[in-house]
Amino acid sequence: MIIILSPAATDNDLDELLTNLKDRGYGVHLSKGVEKTIVGVIGAHDDVKPMIAEQLSSLAYIERVVPILKPYKVVGREFHPDKSIITVRGVDIGGQKVVVMAGPCSIETEEQTLEVAKAVKAAGASILRGGAFKPSTSPYSFHGLGEDGLKMMAAAREVTGLPIITEVMDARDIELVSRYADILQVGTRNMANYSLLQEIGACRKPVMLKRGMASTIEEWLQAAEYIANKGNYNIILCERGIRTFETYTRNTFDVSAIPALLGLTHLPIVADPSHGTGKFSLVSPVAKAAVAAGCDGLMIEVHPHPEKALKDGPQSLTPDHFAAMMQEIAAVARAVGRYV
Amino acid sequence: MIIILSPAATDNDLDELLTNLKDRGYGVHLSKGVEKTIVGVIGAHDDVKPMIAEQLSSLAYIERVVPILKPYKVVGREFHPDKSIITVRGVDIGGQKVVVMAGPCSIETEEQTLEVAKAVKAAGASILRGGAFKPSTSPYSFHGLGEDGLKMMAAAREVTGLPIITEVMDARDIELVSRYADILQVGTRNMANYSLLQEIGACRKPVMLKRGMASTIEEWLQAAEYIANKGNYNIILCERGIRTFETYTRNTFDVSAIPALLGLTHLPIVADPSHGTGKFSLVSPVAKAAVAAGCDGLMIEVHPHPEKALKDGPQSLTPDHFAAMMQEIAAVARAVGRYV
Amino acid sequence: MIIILSPAATDNDLDELLTNLKDRGYGVHLSKGVEKTIVGVIGAHDDVKPMIAEQLSSLAYIERVVPILKPYKVVGREFHPDKSIITVRGVDIGGQKVVVMAGPCSIETEEQTLEVAKAVKAAGASILRGGAFKPSTSPYSFHGLGEDGLKMMAAAREVTGLPIITEVMDARDIELVSRYADILQVGTRNMANYSLLQEIGACRKPVMLKRGMASTIEEWLQAAEYIANKGNYNIILCERGIRTFETYTRNTFDVSAIPALLGLTHLPIVADPSHGTGKFSLVSPVAKAAVAAGCDGLMIEVHPHPEKALKDGPQSLTPDHFAAMMQEIAAVARAVGRYV
Amino acid sequence: MIIILSPAATDNDLDELLTNLKDRGYGVHLSKGVEKTIVGVIGAHDDVKPMIAEQLSSLAYIERVVPILKPYKVVGREFHPDKSIITVRGVDIGGQKVVVMAGPCSIETEEQTLEVAKAVKAAGASILRGGAFKPSTSPYSFHGLGEDGLKMMAAAREVTGLPIITEVMDARDIELVSRYADILQVGTRNMANYSLLQEIGACRKPVMLKRGMASTIEEWLQAAEYIANKGNYNIILCERGIRTFETYTRNTFDVSAIPALLGLTHLPIVADPSHGTGKFSLVSPVAKAAVAAGCDGLMIEVHPHPEKALKDGPQSLTPDHFAAMMQEIAAVARAVGRYV
Repeated sequence: MIIILSPAATDNDLDELLTNLKDRGYGVHLSKGVEKTIVGVIGAHDDVKPMIAEQLSSLAYIERVVPILKPYKVVGREFHPDKSIITVRGVDIGGQKVVVMAGPCSIETEEQTLEVAKAVKAAGASILRGGAFKPSTSPYSFHGLGEDGLKMMAAAREVTGLPIITEVMDARDIELVSRYADILQVGTRNMANYSLLQEIGACRKPVMLKRGMASTIEEWLQAAEYIANKGNYNIILCERGIRTFETYTRNTFDVSAIPALLGLTHLPIVADPSHGTGKFSLVSPVAKAAVAAGCDGLMIEVHPHPEKALKDGPQSLTPDHFAAMMQEIAAVARAVGRYV
Repeated sequence: MIIILSPAATDNDLDELLTNLKDRGYGVHLSKGVEKTIVGVIGAHDDVKPMIAEQLSSLAYIERVVPILKPYKVVGREFHPDKSIITVRGVDIGGQKVVVMAGPCSIETEEQTLEVAKAVKAAGASILRGGAFKPSTSPYSFHGLGEDGLKMMAAAREVTGLPIITEVMDARDIELVSRYADILQVGTRNMANYSLLQEIGACRKPVMLKRGMASTIEEWLQAAEYIANKGNYNIILCERGIRTFETYTRNTFDVSAIPALLGLTHLPIVADPSHGTGKFSLVSPVAKAAVAAGCDGLMIEVHPHPEKALKDGPQSLTPDHFAAMMQEIAAVARAVGRYV
Repeated sequence: MIIILSPAATDNDLDELLTNLKDRGYGVHLSKGVEKTIVGVIGAHDDVKPMIAEQLSSLAYIERVVPILKPYKVVGREFHPDKSIITVRGVDIGGQKVVVMAGPCSIETEEQTLEVAKAVKAAGASILRGGAFKPSTSPYSFHGLGEDGLKMMAAAREVTGLPIITEVMDARDIELVSRYADILQVGTRNMANYSLLQEIGACRKPVMLKRGMASTIEEWLQAAEYIANKGNYNIILCERGIRTFETYTRNTFDVSAIPALLGLTHLPIVADPSHGTGKFSLVSPVAKAAVAAGCDGLMIEVHPHPEKALKDGPQSLTPDHFAAMMQEIAAVARAVGRYV
Repeated sequence: MIIILSPAATDNDLDELLTNLKDRGYGVHLSKGVEKTIVGVIGAHDDVKPMIAEQLSSLAYIERVVPILKPYKVVGREFHPDKSIITVRGVDIGGQKVVVMAGPCSIETEEQTLEVAKAVKAAGASILRGGAFKPSTSPYSFHGLGEDGLKMMAAAREVTGLPIITEVMDARDIELVSRYADILQVGTRNMANYSLLQEIGACRKPVMLKRGMASTIEEWLQAAEYIANKGNYNIILCERGIRTFETYTRNTFDVSAIPALLGLTHLPIVADPSHGTGKFSLVSPVAKAAVAAGCDGLMIEVHPHPEKALKDGPQSLTPDHFAAMMQEIAAVARAVGRYV
């Protein structure tokens, strides 16, 4: 890290700082400019550098501390230059194929689940998504069927062969959800639920980590690092839009995050245009955009009767619309050297 | 709610909608303008209206659904016109006194805790704050002492008589933390952790709910409704800044939220200028601003040696600075008819 | 518009409101619910409705006023259901062809301009972009060559046949810039410079209106309405990213705005991934995303030596990179039924 | 500035960089760490450093360029450690007195103007505000009376002795507006209208520069630098809220910006809680907050009949409310060692 001293810093302040750093075992590199004095800090103990940077920032004679190293390691591309591929029941996520995960926002009945599962499989989806435990802004909304929902998804897997992905919201449910699900999903509201992340890190189940709606790319990678740090490297990232001042869409889908992440991390990147836009009419164009930008997969909400869906109907496609979208996605995927 | 039809809606679409609504037991109020047709929906079943609003929004012939009722009830001022006062070991929060909660970001040692507790009490604080379970963006940061930290806080309470407030991050820790704490704190990252909110709702311990850094005032009140809905009405709200494009401060402290909430809810409002600004030099002026705007309490980070704090040193005041700030706060409180 | 009364409104308040509205010549539609009283306002004088909505919002007994009509007309798709095509020296913008506008951020020398113009034409660009009048956050930055720059662009048009687009920042320069440019550009900082918009509306020159970095889609269309309202319908919109909390990219490119606008307006939509991302490595993937999402054109910064550019080097492509990108864009355009 | 090399940078890259910098006349300071190589750039030519930083950022072997110096000078507190006081017809802005500027959003009639002027003077205001040239999001809104409005303001000054402040939106109007106004106001939409700023810089009239709704504090100070750089140092800054995701208030009033600016610049800071909140019920509490935080003045919209105002009625106070607010403001001002 680099320490920039305040113009008011005295020689005593500087001496105190240098002693402080040397006592901690760091090498220092001093540069006295005409207007600013700068101290470079070199050496071991990288793990505690963020803490020391914070501590030093509280000194009145220090203007700014600039970190040099990235605040994540294991998930970084510098640590693991090759792209990671996560394999789930034979489906490779992170390879040439753009993997489509589709299904209803909430699991409602066995019939609905099976109907959608068959329809999305026929249209080319590789993984079945569905919510059994549902976060909702209002306590009066539908919160999912719980284990009954998981059983319905497992039954649909039995019939269609599609692996299943579903959200886990509470560390106490990890064991239960893991018994049914092939991929655990961490939702946007829980991206910074570190208890949950650490426990998922301790199991070895593949996990898809959605971006927090107010999280920077760097914070998102640090959340992934929480999981990796406990030993679970089977992490998939999912861009689902961030919160901005624009209210026409439910969120602002950050398409640039896809190529940015491809440079920063080796983890696969999935895009969720359903939550990213909140409007069914925008799902297909934004899905195509995400594929063109290089995403490794898509997560799409499909409901046989969106106008009767217990949740997120406005952003759900009908099976027919989904099938049409898959044709268009396939064409875009081919244009960028991928396939669906 | 009010439904605005798309200009492309046909008479058949309208008939279908009216039948749909009548079948659900609603009265309707039809208004055909020159350019737009509008349907007012009247009647019972308010709880499911948000779901129906979502479902209808998924119909292509509907342009927009405008909700009329607020999405929260029990925490709303219309439900309970008088201000709520939460009493904790004899300290009234929500009354004439501006209640100051102060202490270190993280509990580090028994000495540090007791030293700070005595100092903030001497300066006029009414409640001791401190973190035993700490959320951190980085997995490599300090995460708190856990139960040992709680014991140190309880020991400081023993000596000083100050009630204690501390964060609970995981539903599994509620029972443990409740054994020591007088007020549970839900942090900004967990404002939308609905499992946690519901379990806190099921206990009767007073709780301080911090605003999610990307949450609107309305969503925040809905999060409070999750707790109240389970029967726990001892809720205090805490404004701690929201995430915006401005990077000079760690967050943007939303001072307008204080008077806005005083109109919308009967719950007491506390302000946290330490997290709201992230810079010790801004804590005192923003604390004064919050008191002038009408807040019922303040939460302030105090550390005997900010430059050695294990967390959040840059926003911590020394005990001396805190004592000076308390003098200034007292003057502003008097100017708005309150006292510290 | 629809007026929702406060729960505290009395019968006298309601009578006063109804009289007020009838005096202004409006019909009213009264709906008294159990919890809320709602007044629908029907009739002529749409132009002054926004002002009346504001006035009524200032009455304590009114909770909220909900506008029903969109705040723009002439630029709306309801007004003109067919897509508009703007033709500039034989180049159709808004048709099947994805029109690529490319060139340096700033015009620096005649050689640089001609070199880039030839290179981008050879790679398939249809229009030459370049800045002669440059806005800069810092007063100490380069501000462009002014008329000399315009002459260099005109000379490059002479040689290559490419029409030229360049920014006008000041109403006093419209006449001068119009003498050289084929399309006037209004930059993000001037989207709400209404003097400038109105004077551009009064001339008939085609204009490309960039989105204000903090503007909603609705405000952007209202800015376009300022131009159209004065009689100039030759308007092209350009999405160039909005300001959010994410700092990894210079702006957050709002890809969803492209299909959203295709539904809301008949005007052509161009995407600027250079400003939208601020990083040359992200330009090509985001350009492909924009084409996949349905944009009618692209605006790309190209500089022979980005590391020597007087402005915006970090987001500029070299001519070689641009040529490679054009190949990729062409493939994506074909995949969505367009061509470059 | 400090240059951090990419891990992929070769020794040749480093040599090229060092040569490049030396050729430009800079000294360099090389620090090769285990993981990162860092180059400090020392020496003259500060003005072009931002441009060079941009140019270097476009090189693939450079990871990041960190500027050390602030991007503004003349308006910075380091340049002029004493607070600046701007005197307008005997009223000192930036001294011990909190200067209140009050009046209608738009000047509508001579009677309205005079009525408000007398009322705000009686209540303790020192300066009369009012809009003759009005920016509006919609082309169909009221745009002000122009010179007639200026004459009405001047007439009210004649009677009351209050100096007047009014907005100028177009460089062509500076001469006209300056003939009547004592302080020119640059509105939020024009904060980055550099033509306007430069021309105002060339005259010597005091100017109040409102913060752009999407501008960081640093960009705002750079906008002020545009004016100062042309020789006009009579600059007052006005915080009026920024655009965020929160929609309950019209803008998010950034109260922390007030003490932040007091540290960064010597210019006086005024707060505008009317635009900052957009709701009359929040104006008084936020005004008190701003005074408690240290602002040097307030700008408040007052209208005799907000429900008939041609613009911004919902955020206007009646003269009675204004008089009551002034009492409260006076008490808070005294509490922080100021007076009204």
